[in-house]
Amino acid sequence: MGKFIVIGERIHCISPSIRQAMETMTPDPILKRAKEQLDAGATYLDVNIGPAEKNGPELMQWAVKLLQENFDNVPLCLDTANQKAIEAGIQVYNREKGKPIVNSADAGDRISNIDLAAANDAICIALCSKAGVPSDNDERMMYCQELLERGMGLGMEAEDLWFDPLFVVIKGMQDKQRDVLEFIKQLADMGFNSTGGLSNVSNMTPKHIRPILDATMVAMAINNGLTSAIANPCDVRLMETIKSADIIMNHSLYADSFLEL
Amino acid sequence: MGKFIVIGERIHCISPSIRQAMETMTPDPILKRAKEQLDAGATYLDVNIGPAEKNGPELMQWAVKLLQENFDNVPLCLDTANQKAIEAGIQVYNREKGKPIVNSADAGDRISNIDLAAANDAICIALCSKAGVPSDNDERMMYCQELLERGMGLGMEAEDLWFDPLFVVIKGMQDKQRDVLEFIKQLADMGFNSTGGLSNVSNMTPKHIRPILDATMVAMAINNGLTSAIANPCDVRLMETIKSADIIMNHSLYADSFLEL
Repeated sequence: MGKFIVIGERIHCISPSIRQAMETMTPDPILKRAKEQLDAGATYLDVNIGPAEKNGPELMQWAVKLLQENFDNVPLCLDTANQKAIEAGIQVYNREKGKPIVNSADAGDRISNIDLAAANDAICIALCSKAGVPSDNDERMMYCQELLERGMGLGMEAEDLWFDPLFVVIKGMQDKQRDVLEFIKQLADMGFNSTGGLSNVSNMTPKHIRPILDATMVAMAINNGLTSAIANPCDVRLMETIKSADIIMNHSLYADSFLEL
Repeated sequence: MGKFIVIGERIHCISPSIRQAMETMTPDPILKRAKEQLDAGATYLDVNIGPAEKNGPELMQWAVKLLQENFDNVPLCLDTANQKAIEAGIQVYNREKGKPIVNSADAGDRISNIDLAAANDAICIALCSKAGVPSDNDERMMYCQELLERGMGLGMEAEDLWFDPLFVVIKGMQDKQRDVLEFIKQLADMGFNSTGGLSNVSNMTPKHIRPILDATMVAMAINNGLTSAIANPCDVRLMETIKSADIIMNHSLYADSFLEL
């Protein structure tokens, strides 16, 4: 196993400054967020342009070129419900630093994003869910197998499917956290890559508690074999914990300066 | 499983103020350290009087009475190479809040501390080592079985043996950290209680890094079933992580105030 991969989540149209920058195709706010995340240790950057029903393909191509030209072909995770926008983004994507990631397929309405990834030699985030949160790990595993068969039937390598166990919120689903951790272990035991929206865990908890819960969860999840997360790399505690977990797992070599690397 | 148990490590004769207080039987420095640790969330307090060859029994009885009278019969972990001092401490120990812990037996020279614990209905920390650090988990398991057989042959309950996997230092034994975590999982799968000197992990790393490494390790270890640690409860990051791990493991119920509890 290699070092844990952080997909920076902060270029997201839910943020007012990013939404406005996307609407007007203004580079600066997007470049600023990109730089902050890369300086903080993100490997991939997620680019969430929302539904983008009007100008999705044009907007995604603009964003992909903007980010890759300014940040040495940084690898990107293309995040939108608009499939044509993802395809368009991939057309202009430079693979020098890694394949593009399609975010995301599930075992329900979005399963055709697997086909899109397969046709374009992309990585695909594969949510082990169909409609809402799976009731248990048997259900998660059923969807995982559906997604795996679909992708492999289309010639994908298993390592290009990054299975998402669906992290769930502590406030309301506290007793399901261990299921998620156990499912991550099952994925790792089968040799699969995995990822997910880690901060779901602390959603709706007080702001000062969120980094503490997220950091604790990521340590436990890495211990069980999680290989990646869609997360905020500017959360210092989270990144310190991820780097420490990489040391403990022997995925990166200890040096007294490891937190600065 | 219940909440994670922290055995506060800070009443230790290696600290100059504590050593002096023990030499002169001066209560205040010891009471101050005890209060700090209990306020911070320690369940047990370790009382390390060193070899105490001269006045061990007298000193341990004084310390046990001092702490239990001032802190509502706080449960204690009696920590010395002087067996007579441990026995003397148990004679005056009040069990209202929990059995005394004998710290510690191993599969080598100190195996007779199991006999001491068995004869006195005490908990015993059982180091899965003989002379130095075990080379692998097969060796750890061999010692675990020796200690278990010895204790159960003397009528102990298995739950009163708290097996210590022997945490090892990252600087020098980075590639052995996963062995320790895996052994903790083996102990948990067999239903055993476990504990250990967690801060060994970060020994010799820069001071500002230690709480980060210790907190990451404790989250991973709790995820694998560690039930207790001998640690510094005044390390805020460590305790925040332990409380968060208890929430994620569903060992304590989430409330927005859980970090203050």
